[in-house]
Order: sequence, then structure tokens, then C-alpha cells
Amino acid sequence: MATAAPVEIAAMRRAIELAARGLGHTSPNPVVGCVVLDSAGRTAGEGWHQRAGGPHAEIHALRAAGERARGGTALVTLEPCNHTGRTGPCAQALIDAGVARVVYAVSDPNPAATGGAVTLGEAGIDVEGGLLADEAAAGNEAWLTSVLRRRPFVLWKYAATLDGRIAAADGTSRWISSPQSRADVHRLRAAADAVIVGSGTARADDPQLGARISGLSDDEISQPLRVVVDSGATAVKAGARVLDGTAPTLIAVAEDADAGHLEGLAPIVRLPRAADGRGLHIPALLQALYAREVRSVLLEGGPTLAGAFLAAQAVDKVVGYLAPVLLGAGPAAVGDAGITTIAQALRLDVTDTERLGPDLRITATPIRHALHEEN
Amino acid sequence: MATAAPVEIAAMRRAIELAARGLGHTSPNPVVGCVVLDSAGRTAGEGWHQRAGGPHAEIHALRAAGERARGGTALVTLEPCNHTGRTGPCAQALIDAGVARVVYAVSDPNPAATGGAVTLGEAGIDVEGGLLADEAAAGNEAWLTSVLRRRPFVLWKYAATLDGRIAAADGTSRWISSPQSRADVHRLRAAADAVIVGSGTARADDPQLGARISGLSDDEISQPLRVVVDSGATAVKAGARVLDGTAPTLIAVAEDADAGHLEGLAPIVRLPRAADGRGLHIPALLQALYAREVRSVLLEGGPTLAGAFLAAQAVDKVVGYLAPVLLGAGPAAVGDAGITTIAQALRLDVTDTERLGPDLRITATPIRHALHEEN
Repeated sequence: MATAAPVEIAAMRRAIELAARGLGHTSPNPVVGCVVLDSAGRTAGEGWHQRAGGPHAEIHALRAAGERARGGTALVTLEPCNHTGRTGPCAQALIDAGVARVVYAVSDPNPAATGGAVTLGEAGIDVEGGLLADEAAAGNEAWLTSVLRRRPFVLWKYAATLDGRIAAADGTSRWISSPQSRADVHRLRAAADAVIVGSGTARADDPQLGARISGLSDDEISQPLRVVVDSGATAVKAGARVLDGTAPTLIAVAEDADAGHLEGLAPIVRLPRAADGRGLHIPALLQALYAREVRSVLLEGGPTLAGAFLAAQAVDKVVGYLAPVLLGAGPAAVGDAGITTIAQALRLDVTDTERLGPDLRITATPIRHALHEEN
Repeated sequence: MATAAPVEIAAMRRAIELAARGLGHTSPNPVVGCVVLDSAGRTAGEGWHQRAGGPHAEIHALRAAGERARGGTALVTLEPCNHTGRTGPCAQALIDAGVARVVYAVSDPNPAATGGAVTLGEAGIDVEGGLLADEAAAGNEAWLTSVLRRRPFVLWKYAATLDGRIAAADGTSRWISSPQSRADVHRLRAAADAVIVGSGTARADDPQLGARISGLSDDEISQPLRVVVDSGATAVKAGARVLDGTAPTLIAVAEDADAGHLEGLAPIVRLPRAADGRGLHIPALLQALYAREVRSVLLEGGPTLAGAFLAAQAVDKVVGYLAPVLLGAGPAAVGDAGITTIAQALRLDVTDTERLGPDLRITATPIRHALHEEN
């Protein structure tokens, strides 16, 4: 913004960094960072929202700043909230602390929380919004998407060969991708509220779906909810690794499925089938997760489920781990997505490419996935 | 090398640049560049091998340098030849010109031409080899490979979606890749001696297979030999675009195929079938091309032919144009390559990645493809 001082820009950048420390721990809340400068522009306090139910970023930063906040400036990555939820409104806390100026990056799109900027302005505080808004929004991508779409943000991850295979002809797939790529997937799991696999993957791989990150203890990682889409209730059986109790698990089955054998093994959610009868109705699945405060989902496939999510326009971001391998046979990364001719192809924008050991990680965003197409 | 002066390193780099100007025009010869420095280290002459049958790089550079070559240094990307082919030996020309020192990058692996360094040394010239050898060898990759393997260098090019499809379920594929990627393919065609497609591609796309490069006239582009592998002699018919006469064409058919209808349309080569009866014997095809002085081949697919070349370990380099598109159905980039389980996967080294418009170009080299495995 034209009126933001260099010291304020630097402080906002720092606030964005601080916010990122909360990723994976704050759901259903956003990640937020805050830096309080004293009246001379020196850093007086820092804070970030560490976990849902705990103090907001502004409260942490104001506590750290103490009396030095008076006459100072607060830089916040998200418009300060105006409502009393599990904690008091931050707008009032900033007024009480006597800050002279509040600069925030992204406006709060949450109808229940919005209005903080107006409250601050009415209290005579100099308020400015939009500073480094794009960077801050990128850090809150999942939460902002979930607020706008009223369903969890969906990141679809796949690992494939250069010819698009996720396994060899005989089904073997360990390992196509590199250790570096597999470690990166655990980072994605830890940042997500839930991980979803289909019955094919559950049957073939018996995955545990936990997040393990080298150098971090179990306490430092928020394990995602493990969701198995087991429409016919035939894939998950007693003894499955996903039932090991190390993290919550949810089995999604069709309303008409005989799931008696799952009672007592794990929580079950019964959902309508897709219109074509194959698998579950994806929007209903996402609604059920949203109702459980899941705001971000890592979809780990396999091809059938990926195809269903893509066909439902329910993929917000794609991360592909491309291994420099050729197989010439074996299942493809994506199954039927309802596309029969090139004009219907799902096109994406590549937003990032990075080498991970021998592999290439491609990050892309579906282009057709505009909000108006979903309405 | 330890003894090369900075001015010599710079001159060799320039010679490598000059050599590249000959790409696509010098076959069956290598590309070669030469810079002659006078006795004070100033550039006296430059040259490159422009076309087979024409003067070698050294001759062009010595002519440009004239008397200034005497007591000077010649930097050459390849060891000066020692034999009299269509032109006289370059080693003798350098001796006659009175140069005091010759520095070359890559030793000549061609048994018929080697020995230039020895001849120069015996004439009392200070000779040094190996300067920027890797860079110079990369510029002569196709030719060096063809000398070592005694078959053409094979570059396999494909264009696919992120899920490895080369067309949609109904066969439509125009266009999966971007205009920038398609322009890049024409650059590859112009650099190759021959372009190969299979009968499936000939039938589905009726490709013309010519090289068209924006900004270059027809005279400035060497059109590759267009090769259609039409084992059963059923794909190429009168009126096919590949028979348009703008460049030579060769139809490769099986020895037992009824190819009478092709007589008079294009030259035909009859080859043995592969051991499994599907398609032609790939090494025999490459030998037939090598005998026609083809030193580099651009394999443009489709999946069946690509699988056969990969199974025959006859791919030296892979260039994949990856379009940010998902299809969920349709043919894969590679068909059966004889790989049934992950342990047999063909693994590659990614040597380069580059964005071409929305697409990603991946260049890779098969790892198993060591010379000893072929022997």
C-alpha cells in the first residue's frame, strides 16, 4: 500500500512467517500472525495463532508488547476479528491496548467474524487493509477456500511415472517416487485436517496414513483425520493399519452398504451414492467432513477417487510427484473423470515446479475451477 | 586443463557456439567449431563445419586468419582429423599454416579419423586435449553416440498430460501441448537426420513431419528423412501428407508384407519382424538407417513404437512435453515395453526442466542405458 512504511512491510512479512507456524494446528480457524511495533517502529511483540481454542495472534503479540503497544502499530495477516467466540474479540483488545494504527493483509471473509476494521476505525484507530494481501492469502489458502466454498479445501496429491503410471502391471509400486518426495507428502499430511483414500488404495496398500516428519516429535505434529472412502464397506477390515488408534479414523460408506462388521472398529459415516452409482456422492462427503470442522483435505487417491473428485470439480490444487521412470503398463494416475474428448480436458495452471531428489514436484491449480462454475 | 589460458577457454567456448550452428546440416559428420588466435592471443579467424562435404571448421578458420595464424593457437571442439576424406586432413592444414599450439576439446573416437593429435605433436606443435570436453561433447551428443553405438542416436519425444495421456478417450489430441512446445518439436526435427513415426500415428494424424521454424527460410532448414514404420504396409496410402515430396520419405515394412501399392510412391525398406511378431526388429531398422548415413533420429511415437524402442534399449534421450491437463482416459504415452513389475522399471536421470508457455519440458536420459548392457 502507498502509505505503509518499509518497517511496516518488513513487519508484515514477519507476521506472515509467524502465521505459517500454526499450519495444521488451528483448524477450523485460519492461521494468523501478528507483529506489534512500538511508537518508534521497533518490534515490541510477536505472536501467532497456535491452536484452535487458544488465544488469537493479536493477543499473544499484545501480551508480549505490554505497555510498549501504546501508541504503536499492529501488523496482522488477517483482519482482526470482531466477535466473541472461544476467545474475546481482537478488535477490542487492540483498542484497549492503545495501539494508534492497525495494518492488516487480508479482509476476514467469515460473516461471523467480519467488521473488525470498522470497529477499530470507529475507535479512532488508523486502519489500513491489503498490505501483502496476496502473500498472506497464499498462507491461508486452505482456510480462505473453505470459507468461500463452504466445503473443505481439497489438495489432490499423486505420484506417477513420466508415462503417468502409479504402479506396474502387476500392481507393485514401491517405490516409484523418491524418499524426498515421500517425506514431502508427510509434510502435506501434517498440514491437512484430513487425509482421504479410496477402497482400492486401502485394499492394495493397507496404508497407515499418519504424518511422520524427521526431526519433529509426535507432540509437534497434528495427525490428520484418516478417511477411507469404502462405499461398499468391503475394503477396511479389522487389523487394517488405518485402525491402529494413533489418530482418528472415519470410514465413509454408502447408505445401503452392509457395514455391521465395522461397528466398534471406527466411526462410520453413511452417505448417498454418486448419481452414476459408482462410489459416494463427493459433495456429500465433503459436507460431512466440513460438518466435522475439517477445513482442508489431502486427497491421496487412487485413480478412481481422484477421477470422481475431478469430475465433481472438487479439487482446488494438485501436487504431482513425477518420478523419472517409465513403465509402459499399469494403472494411470487418474481414472474416469467424465472426459471423453479433448475439448472437455481439465486444464490447469502450473504455479510451481521443484526438484525433489530425482523427482519433479509439480504444483498446479485447475483453471475451470472458478467459483461461478460451481454455483 | 591446467595449462589453458583464460583467453583460450573463452575462445573454446566461442568455438562450441560456432559448432552448434552446423547442427542438422553436417551429418554424417560431427559439428565442429574452430577459433584461431594470433600469437598475441587475439582472435584471428573463426569457422565451423557448415555441411557434409564442405570444408572442416579448421579450414574455414585458417582461411579467415590468413598469415595471422602463424605462431598462433587453434582452438577446436574436436580433435583435428588425420585422414583424407572428401576434404584433406586438418592436422596437415594446421601444420602448413604454422600454428604453434592446438587445443582441442574432445578426442575423435572415429577410428578412420583419429591420430590427428599425434601427427600435430610429431610436427613439433604444442598439443593439448580435453579443454571444456563435457560442453563440447554435449554439443556433439548425437554424433558421438552414433560412433560409439554404431547406430543412430535416438531421441524419443512425447507430449502428454499430467496423467500421461497423449489423446482423449475418443482419440482427439489437438492440442494437448502448447504452441511453444510444438515449435520446440520443429527445432528437434530440424536438428535430426530422420524423424520416425509408427503406423498408428500415420493412420490417426496423417502427419507431414516437416520442420518449420519461424524466422528461418526453407533453405536454412535441413528437412529430416521422414520414416514411417508401417510393418503391415497398411497405414501409408497415396495422398498421405508424408508423401508430399517436400522432403525424402522412407517406408519401413516387414519382409513378408504386401507392399505393392507403395511402389512408386516412396522408397521402401523391407526389414525382419520383431521376435514377438509385433512390429519390426528395432535394431535392424536402426541399422538400415545407419547404412543410409542417418546419425540421429527423432522418434515421435506413438506408444507402441515408443514401447518397442524402450524395450530394445534403443532410446538415448527422452524429451517430454508435459501439458498441465488431466484427461482421466485415453491412450498412454508408452505402450508395452516388456515391463511387468516395479523392479524392472526403466529409470532415468532428469537432466533439464524448462517451462515452455504453460507446459513443462523434461529432458531425461535412461540410466540402464549403459554401453556394457548393450554388448
